[in-house]
Amino acid sequence: MDMASRNQSLRVGVLGAGRIGRIHTQILTRLGVTVVAIADPSDERGASLAREFGVAKVTTNPDDIFQDPTIHAVLICSPTDQHAQQIHQAAAHKKHIFCEKPIALDLAVVDAAVHAVEAAGVKMMVGFNRRFDANFKRIRQAILQDEIGTIGMVRITSRDPSAPPVSYIKVSGGIFCDMTIHDFDMARFLVGAEVDQVFVMAQARDPEIGAAGDVDTAVICLRFENGVLGYIENSRVAAYGYDQRVEILGSKGAVSCENNYPNTVTISNGTSIARDLPLHFFIDRYMEAYKDELAAFVEICLNKDAIAPVSGHDGRQALKLGLAATLSMKENRPVRLCEFDTPRMVGRL
Amino acid sequence: MDMASRNQSLRVGVLGAGRIGRIHTQILTRLGVTVVAIADPSDERGASLAREFGVAKVTTNPDDIFQDPTIHAVLICSPTDQHAQQIHQAAAHKKHIFCEKPIALDLAVVDAAVHAVEAAGVKMMVGFNRRFDANFKRIRQAILQDEIGTIGMVRITSRDPSAPPVSYIKVSGGIFCDMTIHDFDMARFLVGAEVDQVFVMAQARDPEIGAAGDVDTAVICLRFENGVLGYIENSRVAAYGYDQRVEILGSKGAVSCENNYPNTVTISNGTSIARDLPLHFFIDRYMEAYKDELAAFVEICLNKDAIAPVSGHDGRQALKLGLAATLSMKENRPVRLCEFDTPRMVGRL
Amino acid sequence: MDMASRNQSLRVGVLGAGRIGRIHTQILTRLGVTVVAIADPSDERGASLAREFGVAKVTTNPDDIFQDPTIHAVLICSPTDQHAQQIHQAAAHKKHIFCEKPIALDLAVVDAAVHAVEAAGVKMMVGFNRRFDANFKRIRQAILQDEIGTIGMVRITSRDPSAPPVSYIKVSGGIFCDMTIHDFDMARFLVGAEVDQVFVMAQARDPEIGAAGDVDTAVICLRFENGVLGYIENSRVAAYGYDQRVEILGSKGAVSCENNYPNTVTISNGTSIARDLPLHFFIDRYMEAYKDELAAFVEICLNKDAIAPVSGHDGRQALKLGLAATLSMKENRPVRLCEFDTPRMVGRL
Amino acid sequence: MDMASRNQSLRVGVLGAGRIGRIHTQILTRLGVTVVAIADPSDERGASLAREFGVAKVTTNPDDIFQDPTIHAVLICSPTDQHAQQIHQAAAHKKHIFCEKPIALDLAVVDAAVHAVEAAGVKMMVGFNRRFDANFKRIRQAILQDEIGTIGMVRITSRDPSAPPVSYIKVSGGIFCDMTIHDFDMARFLVGAEVDQVFVMAQARDPEIGAAGDVDTAVICLRFENGVLGYIENSRVAAYGYDQRVEILGSKGAVSCENNYPNTVTISNGTSIARDLPLHFFIDRYMEAYKDELAAFVEICLNKDAIAPVSGHDGRQALKLGLAATLSMKENRPVRLCEFDTPRMVGRL
Repeated sequence: MDMASRNQSLRVGVLGAGRIGRIHTQILTRLGVTVVAIADPSDERGASLAREFGVAKVTTNPDDIFQDPTIHAVLICSPTDQHAQQIHQAAAHKKHIFCEKPIALDLAVVDAAVHAVEAAGVKMMVGFNRRFDANFKRIRQAILQDEIGTIGMVRITSRDPSAPPVSYIKVSGGIFCDMTIHDFDMARFLVGAEVDQVFVMAQARDPEIGAAGDVDTAVICLRFENGVLGYIENSRVAAYGYDQRVEILGSKGAVSCENNYPNTVTISNGTSIARDLPLHFFIDRYMEAYKDELAAFVEICLNKDAIAPVSGHDGRQALKLGLAATLSMKENRPVRLCEFDTPRMVGRL
Repeated sequence: MDMASRNQSLRVGVLGAGRIGRIHTQILTRLGVTVVAIADPSDERGASLAREFGVAKVTTNPDDIFQDPTIHAVLICSPTDQHAQQIHQAAAHKKHIFCEKPIALDLAVVDAAVHAVEAAGVKMMVGFNRRFDANFKRIRQAILQDEIGTIGMVRITSRDPSAPPVSYIKVSGGIFCDMTIHDFDMARFLVGAEVDQVFVMAQARDPEIGAAGDVDTAVICLRFENGVLGYIENSRVAAYGYDQRVEILGSKGAVSCENNYPNTVTISNGTSIARDLPLHFFIDRYMEAYKDELAAFVEICLNKDAIAPVSGHDGRQALKLGLAATLSMKENRPVRLCEFDTPRMVGRL
Repeated sequence: MDMASRNQSLRVGVLGAGRIGRIHTQILTRLGVTVVAIADPSDERGASLAREFGVAKVTTNPDDIFQDPTIHAVLICSPTDQHAQQIHQAAAHKKHIFCEKPIALDLAVVDAAVHAVEAAGVKMMVGFNRRFDANFKRIRQAILQDEIGTIGMVRITSRDPSAPPVSYIKVSGGIFCDMTIHDFDMARFLVGAEVDQVFVMAQARDPEIGAAGDVDTAVICLRFENGVLGYIENSRVAAYGYDQRVEILGSKGAVSCENNYPNTVTISNGTSIARDLPLHFFIDRYMEAYKDELAAFVEICLNKDAIAPVSGHDGRQALKLGLAATLSMKENRPVRLCEFDTPRMVGRL
Repeated sequence: MDMASRNQSLRVGVLGAGRIGRIHTQILTRLGVTVVAIADPSDERGASLAREFGVAKVTTNPDDIFQDPTIHAVLICSPTDQHAQQIHQAAAHKKHIFCEKPIALDLAVVDAAVHAVEAAGVKMMVGFNRRFDANFKRIRQAILQDEIGTIGMVRITSRDPSAPPVSYIKVSGGIFCDMTIHDFDMARFLVGAEVDQVFVMAQARDPEIGAAGDVDTAVICLRFENGVLGYIENSRVAAYGYDQRVEILGSKGAVSCENNYPNTVTISNGTSIARDLPLHFFIDRYMEAYKDELAAFVEICLNKDAIAPVSGHDGRQALKLGLAATLSMKENRPVRLCEFDTPRMVGRL
């Protein structure tokens, strides 16, 4: 069977027709996967997306997707607070699951969802799209190929061009569970080890964000269990655009990446040597990564032996780091990840 | 009507299922255009391409396409020596035409084809895909926006990673009509003027290419009618890959572009600071340009008022430059383009 | 009076004929300053340096310099444990003082030395040479000229190509007072504010350095009194050479610098696009900075109204940061700088 | 004998106290060479330079230098039309000669001067300073170390920030003998072979330069005797500053260099990613090269066996290329260098 027919045989339902749901639907269409139905609370939004990509069925009720026996897999692109429940439903109906990050903002809830998936024997992949970016994949490859020797230190720079609305920030779970969670996953992905300790220094440059109880500028230090040191720098406001860089120092050298640009053109005049700004935000920067991410999900759906390259466990560990960072900031002290393994600590948060 | 339905309404036939025919078919499919049929002398090759992209009809006879009244436009992706005749046939059947470069290797033949298209009242676009590349578009924009003042000099560097087979070189029309023709079009596109004079210094580094009567290394100087100087550097062999750069000096500054790379990663070790090679060849480098090129063709097919961004005249002028360069090399002298406007000279070639 | 005669009129004595003493003597000679005498415990080393740069007098006794009434200024290039005493002697003899960093490893000792200088009415400049580097000066200028708006975050990357001998490390005062002290001064110089809080995560990758009670890899977080966040990354081993970079994020943009290289040459072959390694270590990288540093010292010696661009206070503050970082590492907690203002804490260290 | 005493033993006279005479005097002083006397038609200019660098003797009569038996070598930094005669005089008095380019604008005159030097058994070095630039030396090294295989093509970009006064242009001998002559020498230096054929396309963008009978914008094609192709691009006006780049394509890869910059700082804001302009003109860009150049001259003066790294023959060949380029432009045809070997052709020019 050729690739086109193979992909076409996979029947998928999409939960959520917002920005990320739209991106995934477009990519699935290009991959030739059969998008059977789209569910969204807004009739209009779902219908518009369905029309754009020729999806036959639209519903406001996710059950229409869960209970459709012809659907093999679902993409959970709904708001975070619905993720866990939809994972349970999908697992109950034996559908493979692609779930946007984070699974939930509560570790116990995440654990229950991951357990339900395992018990049902379906596969789940969590949407840490950056693992599929060409730059970060090449960095991971440099490590695996021993191009820089043993890792000593990893730096992640992650800055957004501008902050989301304060209304969003209030329900986001805080910068560490909302934004840094991607960087926590990246750190684990690149180092290939778990973190032992986290320390945060943070600040709200924007008083409105501070008033909402969050910060917009942070340095997060990580000590990995294998002794590697890591540090993540986050900012919600980089005037020049989306800034996504990694640099790793190893015993034999270093590997790093720069941002991606819309062109390679340089303009020289009597004042400066200049180039255009980098790709402005995540949709531009990571479109290729989103494609490869869904191609990987299609593969695990169609190939019984294929394992999810980003698992529920990965989602859990990144969340735990987000919670530890939040605690470190609150208490201005280094926090050990094992604090979250005792019932007391989990309860306390 | 939304974009998807609009594109779907355009019915296209593809002539030639080789490498470039495959690329165009893939892109048309992604654009949602209806590819009605594929014609290729090889039954097998046509069928394979049709299967890959779900094209219903395959034929070894191009007439099946020309005579299909439901087809609005054709893509001529056949060998060069069939282009002109297929243009005549398509024009006769009132189909819009996308023709790969060059239209032909004989100016009179090109002129007749262009005339037939005009007489038939159909539209024709020639496949100078590089005009749609993000780097070169940005350079053109810098000129139009007066970011570098009045142009004084333009440099085009154009190197292939490796030479095509000698069998191909023998029928290619020579490097200037086969490879440099793209650079001639780029020079005209960027400068926005016609060339008055051409001079060539060239060399066959590879003795097999020399034995085939061609060269693989060349510097081509251009004097434009408006006084701008241009120079193109070609090589058939660049060990590090496809090299496509432009640099323009103006009265207020300069604009230039670098090659495109698969990633932005740098690896530093005890020996060097290094990055991976640039995108290896034209399919990688210009895939986005091909998409934008066909989107432009779709637009002129569907929008009565839209004008082809690359016309038959553009194809003619680039060919004339190729012929002038060939003559300059043979006679080791600067050649004026007006030499090709007299019957004597055209006859002589 | 022209510049040459003016500089010649300044009579200087150099204390210490080691590596840095040699650099400073060479620069003073080029600046046309009169180097009257060199003192070094090793007769041979002092004599060799004097011969190389035509210095008339060599001695093993620093008093020969302090008591020479024709000498206006001294350069203290001796081992750290002699700095403070030599400052006291120079001040007592009314000589201006250039002192290599650190003044001492004990805050009280530093305070006493700074006080003696002030009481004597002579000038003192501390050898934080990096403030005179073209890259860092340009970054400071970008801040002062409001090219990036209000500073939010500063990052300093500072890596040595290889660790000094363990024998040196044992008497160095530890990485934070020996190596990071330069970065602490740079942070204060760039941000133009004092630090409130320090936190360190560190590691000894090299077991010998660990056995010597020190670390070779560290991330140091700073919270400035004005809310700016800073972080410094140190490593004693960067296989590709000396790595000295700064990046600052402001409300209107960012400013950063790259390393300096011996040439701008790129070599492209079938494997990679590569350049030579950066300037290997501090003498190569900062030679121009050393020149500008001493030119500034000459200026404050000759111009009554000129103020030292790097003061004893600057030396004190950088040391305090080194001590705070050391304490943070030991106790694995954020340390406030004000802890060092109480008699108890100073005594405790 | 140590290096300082060795250099001091060399006694030099400088002819010409203009811009380049000043640079060389400064460098000789730093090298510790004894500058005995300066000759300049302007008493004031000579005296000022002598005062600045402590040179004891000033004269308006060059004979005072030629006839001083204690002087071993002369630096000819006078106007071009005095070079040849001063070479004859210096040779007659058995002094080694450093002569700024060009030796003369007439081949026969150059030949006679070179012959006089050889007959006198003194050494002569011609001031093609760029051979000593770190970038170009590294490129030459890449070729010699076979890092790019057999050379196929060489490109030289050479642009000045602004044109000299028209008064200078009128007596300069034309752009090819005045400006391009450096690039011709660079081409010969890098390729290590002689040129067989030259072709020029040129233009005067500035009408005043055109009225003075010269051009300011040119492309010069070179065919070397070994088949290598070269092209040089010159402009008298690059708004962003001095532009000096080389790129060479070989069978195994390519080597190229970028301009030099005063710092490595990048500023990113809401508009662009920018850096400061490159070093503005030749004194900034080539100061290090001038130093190495004179160090090489000092070496050949002091070491009987050392050979001049840039010979009178090199000066002659570069001039011949300048004359051939001038002829090519006038007659709009490729010119063979052998045309200049016959009495007829030399007479004709």
